Amino acid sequence: MFVHAETSTGALQPAGAICRAAHECGALVIGDCVTSLGGMPVDIDENGIDIAYSGTQKCLSAPPGLAPLTLSGAALDKLRARTSPCVSWYLDLKLIDEYWGTSHRYHHTAPITMFFALREALRLCQQETLEARFERHRLNHRAFVAGIEALGLSMHVPVANRLWTLNTPTLPEGCDDGELRKRLLDEFGIEVLGGFGPLAGKILRVGLMGASSQRQYVLLLLGALETCLQANGGTRAAEAVYQSSGGRGDRED
Amino acid sequence: MFVHAETSTGALQPAGAICRAAHECGALVIGDCVTSLGGMPVDIDENGIDIAYSGTQKCLSAPPGLAPLTLSGAALDKLRARTSPCVSWYLDLKLIDEYWGTSHRYHHTAPITMFFALREALRLCQQETLEARFERHRLNHRAFVAGIEALGLSMHVPVANRLWTLNTPTLPEGCDDGELRKRLLDEFGIEVLGGFGPLAGKILRVGLMGASSQRQYVLLLLGALETCLQANGGTRAAEAVYQSSGGRGDRED
Repeated sequence: MFVHAETSTGALQPAGAICRAAHECGALVIGDCVTSLGGMPVDIDENGIDIAYSGTQKCLSAPPGLAPLTLSGAALDKLRARTSPCVSWYLDLKLIDEYWGTSHRYHHTAPITMFFALREALRLCQQETLEARFERHRLNHRAFVAGIEALGLSMHVPVANRLWTLNTPTLPEGCDDGELRKRLLDEFGIEVLGGFGPLAGKILRVGLMGASSQRQYVLLLLGALETCLQANGGTRAAEAVYQSSGGRGDRED
Repeated sequence: MFVHAETSTGALQPAGAICRAAHECGALVIGDCVTSLGGMPVDIDENGIDIAYSGTQKCLSAPPGLAPLTLSGAALDKLRARTSPCVSWYLDLKLIDEYWGTSHRYHHTAPITMFFALREALRLCQQETLEARFERHRLNHRAFVAGIEALGLSMHVPVANRLWTLNTPTLPEGCDDGELRKRLLDEFGIEVLGGFGPLAGKILRVGLMGASSQRQYVLLLLGALETCLQANGGTRAAEAVYQSSGGRGDRED
């Protein structure tokens, strides 16, 4: 079991390497793709993730309430061969398999309005194309990082492992993370999260996911940070990335 | 554990008697109020139901996707004193208690659009008033029963135990329930369910819940049954009930 896009740190985990190592031991792999699906390549089959699940409310930009789920043939075989009863009725995948499959044996009343919302969100993904969507997330991430570095801050995660969807700049020494986040919310209408556990007070967690991964939001936050941190050059550095890339960083719909 | 409004038979179970018997033995009572809440009196505290849950998609007429839940003080005490770990994360009420309560410890991302839908549905209940809403369900049930009996059919459940929200007329001898329901759907756009288990092929299950408990639907179905069963007098008998009661049987909004 691994988390593909790790939102507490901002790190992307190497799905392919994890799955290869697990499969060599004869294990199946469950991948939490909540913060990657729709914002970064997940490549479930190529990476060999046997059971992948996600949420609707992050990079897919539908309302929260559903967990898209997929199982490999090997995972389905394992599931169908299971003889011990599942302790959870809600997530008894054998029952859900029968509900989804040909027998359509009743398991739950489906939340149909959520299905319509997810369908519309997926239609928007298809219209934008996944390639353009990934590139948009990558570009806004790159522009944000350039701005953060121009402000004299650094990113918590090494460049090779950074998520495009959840960005974790390190706070300057002596900066009160609660005060900063309160100012961002009160004065600029921007809600970012702080770190927790060992990272409490040390990083910000900035989501640039789905509809929120847009040039205007990157520039708004960098401008707000310039004011709050009394620093300069953040938005200009980000703009330079947009201009050199030729991409706009906005969703085209 | 009991089901208050039993949808497989159409019977109302005696909540008060069940709870009194259980409490005499020192047991807590869980009541499934899915098909009663918003359509018939539930009287959770008066009846002594310790844990009551319902759904949004039946008599509340919101979309499916939430399960309103309430716990008595005794049930909360029992829950908070529990020492063994809960095998379900999804329905670990201790975690949900902490999420709902003052510590607001994170448990899940709330399905906010469903909350808005439920709020609007509850606002409509409040606007109609529960008393008028119950009376509407009762009147449409009475009119439907009068129509059914005028057609020469009988109700499966004795009069004292009938649900207003789920009505179960007994099919005439020799009537093919699948054929009848297919005609109702194809020719009249009315979907009713058949019985299952020992009642398969013997009854119809007719929901008159929330927004669907209206005079126009009762008359439409009775008229369709007149055609399908080659019988007469169903709609006239129902109309007589509406006229003598002075109520219209329609939702007023």
